[in-house]
Amino acid sequence: MGNNLLRGKKGIIFGALDEKSIAWKTALKCYDEGASIVLTNAPVALRMGEINKLAEAVKAPVIGADVTNMDDLKKLFEESMKHFGGGIDFVLHSIGMSLNMRKGKHYTEMDYGFNQKTLDISAMSLHRVLRTAWDMDAINEWGSVVALTYIAAQRVFPDYNEMADAKALLESVTRSFGYHYALKKKVRVNTVSQSPTRTTAGSGVKGFDGFIDYAEKMSPLGNASSDDCANYCVTLFSDYSRMVTMQNLFHDGGFSFTGVSEPVVKQMEK
Amino acid sequence: MGNNLLRGKKGIIFGALDEKSIAWKTALKCYDEGASIVLTNAPVALRMGEINKLAEAVKAPVIGADVTNMDDLKKLFEESMKHFGGGIDFVLHSIGMSLNMRKGKHYTEMDYGFNQKTLDISAMSLHRVLRTAWDMDAINEWGSVVALTYIAAQRVFPDYNEMADAKALLESVTRSFGYHYALKKKVRVNTVSQSPTRTTAGSGVKGFDGFIDYAEKMSPLGNASSDDCANYCVTLFSDYSRMVTMQNLFHDGGFSFTGVSEPVVKQMEK
Amino acid sequence: MGNNLLRGKKGIIFGALDEKSIAWKTALKCYDEGASIVLTNAPVALRMGEINKLAEAVKAPVIGADVTNMDDLKKLFEESMKHFGGGIDFVLHSIGMSLNMRKGKHYTEMDYGFNQKTLDISAMSLHRVLRTAWDMDAINEWGSVVALTYIAAQRVFPDYNEMADAKALLESVTRSFGYHYALKKKVRVNTVSQSPTRTTAGSGVKGFDGFIDYAEKMSPLGNASSDDCANYCVTLFSDYSRMVTMQNLFHDGGFSFTGVSEPVVKQMEK
Amino acid sequence: MGNNLLRGKKGIIFGALDEKSIAWKTALKCYDEGASIVLTNAPVALRMGEINKLAEAVKAPVIGADVTNMDDLKKLFEESMKHFGGGIDFVLHSIGMSLNMRKGKHYTEMDYGFNQKTLDISAMSLHRVLRTAWDMDAINEWGSVVALTYIAAQRVFPDYNEMADAKALLESVTRSFGYHYALKKKVRVNTVSQSPTRTTAGSGVKGFDGFIDYAEKMSPLGNASSDDCANYCVTLFSDYSRMVTMQNLFHDGGFSFTGVSEPVVKQMEK
Repeated sequence: MGNNLLRGKKGIIFGALDEKSIAWKTALKCYDEGASIVLTNAPVALRMGEINKLAEAVKAPVIGADVTNMDDLKKLFEESMKHFGGGIDFVLHSIGMSLNMRKGKHYTEMDYGFNQKTLDISAMSLHRVLRTAWDMDAINEWGSVVALTYIAAQRVFPDYNEMADAKALLESVTRSFGYHYALKKKVRVNTVSQSPTRTTAGSGVKGFDGFIDYAEKMSPLGNASSDDCANYCVTLFSDYSRMVTMQNLFHDGGFSFTGVSEPVVKQMEK
Repeated sequence: MGNNLLRGKKGIIFGALDEKSIAWKTALKCYDEGASIVLTNAPVALRMGEINKLAEAVKAPVIGADVTNMDDLKKLFEESMKHFGGGIDFVLHSIGMSLNMRKGKHYTEMDYGFNQKTLDISAMSLHRVLRTAWDMDAINEWGSVVALTYIAAQRVFPDYNEMADAKALLESVTRSFGYHYALKKKVRVNTVSQSPTRTTAGSGVKGFDGFIDYAEKMSPLGNASSDDCANYCVTLFSDYSRMVTMQNLFHDGGFSFTGVSEPVVKQMEK
Repeated sequence: MGNNLLRGKKGIIFGALDEKSIAWKTALKCYDEGASIVLTNAPVALRMGEINKLAEAVKAPVIGADVTNMDDLKKLFEESMKHFGGGIDFVLHSIGMSLNMRKGKHYTEMDYGFNQKTLDISAMSLHRVLRTAWDMDAINEWGSVVALTYIAAQRVFPDYNEMADAKALLESVTRSFGYHYALKKKVRVNTVSQSPTRTTAGSGVKGFDGFIDYAEKMSPLGNASSDDCANYCVTLFSDYSRMVTMQNLFHDGGFSFTGVSEPVVKQMEK
Repeated sequence: MGNNLLRGKKGIIFGALDEKSIAWKTALKCYDEGASIVLTNAPVALRMGEINKLAEAVKAPVIGADVTNMDDLKKLFEESMKHFGGGIDFVLHSIGMSLNMRKGKHYTEMDYGFNQKTLDISAMSLHRVLRTAWDMDAINEWGSVVALTYIAAQRVFPDYNEMADAKALLESVTRSFGYHYALKKKVRVNTVSQSPTRTTAGSGVKGFDGFIDYAEKMSPLGNASSDDCANYCVTLFSDYSRMVTMQNLFHDGGFSFTGVSEPVVKQMEK
């Protein structure tokens, strides 16, 4: 496509690790639609990933930032505004990390110190980003912030472990801060609840392959891909969705409102 | 704007009564975005309204159809496909009518014959439209159907009367038929739950003015206008939202997830 | 058990067809808890069923009533109040019938005349019952009305067909009328969304056995039985739940908030 | 009342500060219904409160425990089981504390260190309690755990500040742990979402009086009292609700499903 939907808009994209990342696809897509981009990720992720390839493709600077560090975030916004010569129009928050999952700890035997870090990185980081922007008045009127989430915030998917709780917290921060930012400056904040996606991060989840097949069978349109998600994010960053805020938007091929599908019933009869 | 988001797409718009109608604004907007349009409404509405003005503006034929009459709907789709020289890409269902409200009957004293007509016109009409298209295979792959609804389907707004029940039924039909149409032909079906809007239809609701002010005060971004709604519908008709189906999407400036707002609390203290 | 939870209370139970009915179990349980009962069902169901056995067990008169007939309902309430020597404290609405399912018609090829009857019998009947009571002032202050529903009102279960829409309508009537009856006389109205249950009615659903196994595997506590449901209804009729109204209460062993369970994932891998 | 609903059951009640506490009322009510009780609270709260008066009334030992300290929780369960001579049947979690609110910090200017403590005390404490019981196998089969929450977890009430996020997290923990505990030992875990209540804790919220009046006007049955809530908790601890788990149950006089009420509309017109 490429319809200049984001012509002249300026955005910060968090979380593009490699080509499989939703954030990566979203950066490409936003660029195609006429946006200027700043890319950011945790310093450690920058070292591991291949972000320079993306940076070149979308002509974006890469600015490292630890989302649990307010000074890093301040610097990120300062440098971004300097780069853009003005305020920010959109932000993609695609950040999540579970220490307990990495360490193979079951939900019922979590380490509470790890959990605190998981909540900080995966959920409260959205508050930190918004609050940094708020304090600096960095987001333009009618700006749009999207955070990626997962339906485990509403229903239990056992292997999703503590990330379910982190996503529930993230969605609550979205509503709470969204209220204030709408009143103050007509900035909207939403989450997109995406199908399970074979990203490098997603693949870390135990039993992920079996699960992604289940979701595929349960979704009348099939699972949404990263590319689909990038397209959807573009509409949310555009001026076509100005009055949508404080929402959790399912982008999942119909999974969320399907109780059971015929293919799953057939599989159960085996 | 006008970004050719719907370039080459063909759509049927139900329910454009006059300039204040959401359907009217949506027709204009879709045309701006490159779509070809067929306009339709009930024969009686065609006589009352000023639809020819719109028809001229968007270069669309007007085809009358009573949505409770399967022959009318069949004829509508046949003539539309003939006009377009092919299948339909999108449909807007903006249809609602409450006989009990018109007759001033309170919810607790409704006439059940009227109610049956209200449900047929306002909700089952979506089933009739989809089923007509289904039988004729009239909607193209990845087509998109949007029906307008209201949050009274989730929570009670006393003056909204039996229309609350009709909208709940409409949203259920959206999910049920959406499931089957996604499986069969990747057609998606969604509802948009719009802020109260000062249309000619909306104004008929008792206590509407007091209520629209309440909604304005409760929505951090204010009430969404018809123009805003038209823009949002464009994104749902476009290829940017292909994996969204069976959803009820609030387009309401944040009303739906605001429990109470500061302006309302202040008003309560008076 | 039997703790006199409903001591002195008077209730009308709709829909006890045979021993497998939830309404049958609920009548027994309410009687055990000290309530006086009137049993009612459609005249045709009275002929088919074995209700006299139940009537004897709970010392209740049986009064036939077609729930789509206002005269029948008026007579039912009049005779019940005469029998009780006073007003009604609780009502169980366990009524549902799909003509399209009986005739084997798929959701996408429904007969609209049948559908209208399905909605009238399965959903608007609750309005008719409440409105009859309202007009006669037949329900005592703090009375409690419960209607049985199913999660297909929220998510699609394809074989549930048009009953999904009927249940969505039923739940909306519950909220709408519940609002007015709470204001007028502190009467509460709720739905209970029960696990799939092997009743004579439930068994009519195509693919029911496969589905009931799926629900069993997806519910961390397993499917709730009719007896469990009867117990839960007792709490809702009792004075312990006076401030609960306009709610849809899931009684399903955790099914509603389970996205996927380990047993289902295992089955998917076969 | 007092119907021996909890005859022979043994429960731990967290959070009874003074006579206005919901936990206080619930302890009294459970005792009336035949239960044996252990009372617990944070050491500092024990010093401030009048818990000994309650302890005498319900013949319960008082065992101090800091809910963020696993050793304290272990000791609490050990001593409770010793006191009861066996396992636990029910637990009430009525715990919440916001450091940012105490310090008068607006949501957009929160201290993240305080926030971390708020989440730990108000939400993750439920995980800690359940996990302690899980590790010690301290809760009997079909045991019941209830945590008190508030509708700010679903919609924004601006003055509720970071507690909204804490309650969203609490409700997610309820679902997540509830899944596992149901599978392991048929223990159910639910939250009760109560009307705003004039407790000593509740009164700390800014603008609480104005808000409680709004809730009263918006709830068709009025606000639910602490006594009402205690009654409702009894049903959830009893064997009448065995198949209810992983739910958030609104106990609020209908507030949650009322979009607007006539009294509020009238007030808006002033």
